[in-house]
Amino acid sequence: MHESINSYLREILKESSADVSGKLAAYIPRLRDADENLQALAMVTADGQECSAGDDEHLFTIQSISKPFVYALALDDVGIERVREMVGMEPSGEAFNELSLEGGTGRPLNPMINAGAIATHHLVDHSHHGEHPGGRQSVSRTAEVRSRTSRIMEGLSAFAGRELSIDWDAAEEEYSSAYRNMAIAHMLKSHGALDIEPDEAVRGYIDQCSVLVTVKDIARMAATLANNGVHPETGVQVVSPEAARTTLGIMATCGMYDASGRWLTQIGIPAKSGISGGIIGVLPGQVGIASFAPRLNDEGSSVQGVAMFQHLSNELSLHLMSNQRINVIEELERRG
Amino acid sequence: MHESINSYLREILKESSADVSGKLAAYIPRLRDADENLQALAMVTADGQECSAGDDEHLFTIQSISKPFVYALALDDVGIERVREMVGMEPSGEAFNELSLEGGTGRPLNPMINAGAIATHHLVDHSHHGEHPGGRQSVSRTAEVRSRTSRIMEGLSAFAGRELSIDWDAAEEEYSSAYRNMAIAHMLKSHGALDIEPDEAVRGYIDQCSVLVTVKDIARMAATLANNGVHPETGVQVVSPEAARTTLGIMATCGMYDASGRWLTQIGIPAKSGISGGIIGVLPGQVGIASFAPRLNDEGSSVQGVAMFQHLSNELSLHLMSNQRINVIEELERRG
Amino acid sequence: MHESINSYLREILKESSADVSGKLAAYIPRLRDADENLQALAMVTADGQECSAGDDEHLFTIQSISKPFVYALALDDVGIERVREMVGMEPSGEAFNELSLEGGTGRPLNPMINAGAIATHHLVDHSHHGEHPGGRQSVSRTAEVRSRTSRIMEGLSAFAGRELSIDWDAAEEEYSSAYRNMAIAHMLKSHGALDIEPDEAVRGYIDQCSVLVTVKDIARMAATLANNGVHPETGVQVVSPEAARTTLGIMATCGMYDASGRWLTQIGIPAKSGISGGIIGVLPGQVGIASFAPRLNDEGSSVQGVAMFQHLSNELSLHLMSNQRINVIEELERRG
Amino acid sequence: MHESINSYLREILKESSADVSGKLAAYIPRLRDADENLQALAMVTADGQECSAGDDEHLFTIQSISKPFVYALALDDVGIERVREMVGMEPSGEAFNELSLEGGTGRPLNPMINAGAIATHHLVDHSHHGEHPGGRQSVSRTAEVRSRTSRIMEGLSAFAGRELSIDWDAAEEEYSSAYRNMAIAHMLKSHGALDIEPDEAVRGYIDQCSVLVTVKDIARMAATLANNGVHPETGVQVVSPEAARTTLGIMATCGMYDASGRWLTQIGIPAKSGISGGIIGVLPGQVGIASFAPRLNDEGSSVQGVAMFQHLSNELSLHLMSNQRINVIEELERRG
Repeated sequence: MHESINSYLREILKESSADVSGKLAAYIPRLRDADENLQALAMVTADGQECSAGDDEHLFTIQSISKPFVYALALDDVGIERVREMVGMEPSGEAFNELSLEGGTGRPLNPMINAGAIATHHLVDHSHHGEHPGGRQSVSRTAEVRSRTSRIMEGLSAFAGRELSIDWDAAEEEYSSAYRNMAIAHMLKSHGALDIEPDEAVRGYIDQCSVLVTVKDIARMAATLANNGVHPETGVQVVSPEAARTTLGIMATCGMYDASGRWLTQIGIPAKSGISGGIIGVLPGQVGIASFAPRLNDEGSSVQGVAMFQHLSNELSLHLMSNQRINVIEELERRG
Repeated sequence: MHESINSYLREILKESSADVSGKLAAYIPRLRDADENLQALAMVTADGQECSAGDDEHLFTIQSISKPFVYALALDDVGIERVREMVGMEPSGEAFNELSLEGGTGRPLNPMINAGAIATHHLVDHSHHGEHPGGRQSVSRTAEVRSRTSRIMEGLSAFAGRELSIDWDAAEEEYSSAYRNMAIAHMLKSHGALDIEPDEAVRGYIDQCSVLVTVKDIARMAATLANNGVHPETGVQVVSPEAARTTLGIMATCGMYDASGRWLTQIGIPAKSGISGGIIGVLPGQVGIASFAPRLNDEGSSVQGVAMFQHLSNELSLHLMSNQRINVIEELERRG
Repeated sequence: MHESINSYLREILKESSADVSGKLAAYIPRLRDADENLQALAMVTADGQECSAGDDEHLFTIQSISKPFVYALALDDVGIERVREMVGMEPSGEAFNELSLEGGTGRPLNPMINAGAIATHHLVDHSHHGEHPGGRQSVSRTAEVRSRTSRIMEGLSAFAGRELSIDWDAAEEEYSSAYRNMAIAHMLKSHGALDIEPDEAVRGYIDQCSVLVTVKDIARMAATLANNGVHPETGVQVVSPEAARTTLGIMATCGMYDASGRWLTQIGIPAKSGISGGIIGVLPGQVGIASFAPRLNDEGSSVQGVAMFQHLSNELSLHLMSNQRINVIEELERRG
Repeated sequence: MHESINSYLREILKESSADVSGKLAAYIPRLRDADENLQALAMVTADGQECSAGDDEHLFTIQSISKPFVYALALDDVGIERVREMVGMEPSGEAFNELSLEGGTGRPLNPMINAGAIATHHLVDHSHHGEHPGGRQSVSRTAEVRSRTSRIMEGLSAFAGRELSIDWDAAEEEYSSAYRNMAIAHMLKSHGALDIEPDEAVRGYIDQCSVLVTVKDIARMAATLANNGVHPETGVQVVSPEAARTTLGIMATCGMYDASGRWLTQIGIPAKSGISGGIIGVLPGQVGIASFAPRLNDEGSSVQGVAMFQHLSNELSLHLMSNQRINVIEELERRG
């Protein structure tokens, strides 16, 4: 990576670091105690060029950023028709009910809200997967939870291009106070929208959220979606082009919760945020982008991360609705 | 236009004509009495190449397809901040209240629903515009309605690249039974979200919806959005690049009402439909697409038009989330 | 009336006057400019004994307190089946949509909210009534509005036991800014839930709300409901026993808007409040109670009036769920 | 009991038995397999006179009919302020969200819906109660669940005037598929509206619903509410007059779910139904009424029970809004 690019990225980090508003996620100790001054930014183009800056080796739990990737895996595992039968594709708009389940059917409105993500999680096909080796999971998890977690770890690792691992302590901690997710899973079960026991679904879903990643990992995962499902470096076809495309459509309309409309309009990069402070964005055919900074706004997205994306959208015209596609690395070099 | 392209487009029309389900809009005689076998398809690329087939000279009222264009005009006239103060940017999701006004503020959720379109209509700056010349409007419209309609006619004509006109009879007919729009305008007024009298807003908004267009007109209008606000043939900068981009973001998330999520995911072309049977779609930097066929599905979109867009998305990989941009005309020639 | 009773009532007025919180209704000048220190309380038993204190001759517009009485008239005029077809009987609970129309049908949830009261107003049979004589109404009202207003004036006058009149200036003032009611009436019309033009319904409804009454008038009206529809003094059967009973049931469940449950539980007197500062309460077979004091709480009910009802409920055990019925006048004498 | 009364009651049973529409509750085998031709009716006056007919010795699980009684116990145990802090008093109206929790606070809207009943259950003071002796509960219940169930059994037994017992098999069966109640309890917990673990609350609540009663038992329980909290035969003050009154207010506004408004208007007897086929009604100072017949309408209330109540309301003028109170037993004798 050219020094000029690096200095440009550091400039963005510095600029965004001015805003120290927002708060760490409070609901589990591990997130509450994070170092709130960490910052990182990474980009990986669809043809495999990379750049990054800041705390780009820091490991954090992936949380909700896992949602689009597991959705893509489920699309390929059981087919789009089956997935759509169980999980809708519509934005939830202004939160109009506690759980964002579709009136009548009880089907979650989309896979980016927790109800939809839990339903999606349990659709992933675990039948051909053994039990994941490492860690403490063997004690309190059923065989089915272990094999489903194993399948998801394989899939997420392929998206990242390296073998990822789970923070089992974080998973335990979160499971012990997962009342809201347990409520959601029981409600899904009561509507016939879950084939397994609610606590198994929540256990597995929390394992999925506890996968440890760096900002570079999630930038590569995003780049794989930008590149029609093919990892730009390993060349592995992780998911089908159709699954990648469908997932990006969902990210565009539902990825940033209640602010999805404004985000797509003003920033213009299909995205997904996580409560540990990460955000990924994808411009199809161009680039995967990832930011990390733990302070969150009221909607649960990273304050400084939003600022970084806003900067990239404004300055580099990285916007889905722009009439031209730029070569990001060249453009960064030019500006650096 | 090469004959090969023409025959390919006719093929699409023929294929889609097989589905004769759906019904004409029933609420005003003029729409109810339309010829339900009409069909047309047109495409205009961002660099000005055109092709079309079917009843491509048939004039119909633009209806809701006017919404994104008037929104773009308002963005430039009064600025995005002022527009956002009055009209939100979020999808309305599953219809959760009668009027889709934001809880608390009473602000319409987005400019693609009627409440938002009426509020947007009245934001357009009419101050420097005389009264529009032609037609019967002088009788029952106030001076302010006339000058606002005049401003909007200028703007829509610039988007189309030719002088458009209004079907005054259709406008009268619709106004005489516009109870729902009158309810919306009065509710906006009661929330302080309308600066003019409700019946003036509804009168002007119905004029806007009664502009006569062909499928080629609206394909050129769509192409102007695809080309950063510059008409691909006249070269006129009709709206700013920012206004074009913002409008496309809104179309992507809110354009197809309650089915916007599924549309963006499965068809992948930011779009807007109208109750007279038109649909426009825009792929930024690539192409503006327009279909016309009057039978409507339950959501109020053209049944055969949806089929045409589905065909183009599937066959030509015209999808916003595709990793490559194709030259549509070349591709059509190749296939023709 | 015994002096002892009078002094007891004055005591209640004095006690409640301590709370000067709350504000006058602001939306029309006539209400905004009322004397906020006025206070009155009146009771009329089912067998015709009366007592009152304070500004009991002060005339104010009846506003929403007209709703239960016009509902009772409509029940007798067109029958409970027809009324129920057009207006529901269920509490609106926590306001969950702008207009409290039933999902699907568009039918107003109950006759105590404005949507239901406007629909109820237009159900009253005006066919056998001439045009009401007095006042300025002849200028801007259609013949149908005039005859419906005439019928309602006859009915309300019979409930009160004297000929009532309308404050035409107040009605004009209110009509000129009745955006919300106009929105409601247009929405009803668009759902097919109104047989006349929206502005006629609103005009007539506002006339109904502008009837001038004293606290003694509305106490007698309440007593007529308490006495199975028979005026306790004139002996006239104003409405049928069934209409009176049905109306009291609606007042019990829907009379105090969003606080109806708490009101019935803690005060226990089926009631209806109006924005000009009145509240009526009815204990079947026992007594009609009326208070007047113009300062309103956030829910639009009289602050001091609520305090007076609370006092009567607590001290005299006037509570629908009490296991004994007391002779109010005797009890007041004993305590005076 | 006079033979004449008995024959009158049998007449009512016979008349209502004509309607064999409706279905047994399907969600647990024990309810699904009930004998659908059972029928019973009982009345107990506030001064302790009794009459009954049909299968009046048949034992069934009390289900939701336990809700008002446990609410009354909680009011006395921890005070109305504390109860109101945790559980609202407003009807839920047209079901507008999955759980009927108040927007913002997450507080259940009222104690008659499951969310409110579970929250109310856990408020009952269990601190001075040992573990309930009988049954299999010792195996899978925590000490706190056992002592809370013990307290509730004491209270319900006092309301009935005899020692009641629990159908432990029914409780086990229901607990094993209580997904919806588990969802509710977890959601309450996530809002901080539950002080104990969700599964403890659900376990105890299901125990409460599994208490075995006859139609005579619940008529006596209802009569105790009608008599200001004093059992009309044992003379025990089971709950305070205030708790009885408050509970009746809640039954009047929220007792019959979405049809509460129509029920209070047309039948006029504050009531509560249970899914096993019982309905109780209370006219304060007059009578407690109970019916039993297992076929349910779409709202989950007994079809034949509703018919019996409608008959009593129409024929005997047993209506809360009637202007006179009748002596039910005398009236029945007269008619028998």
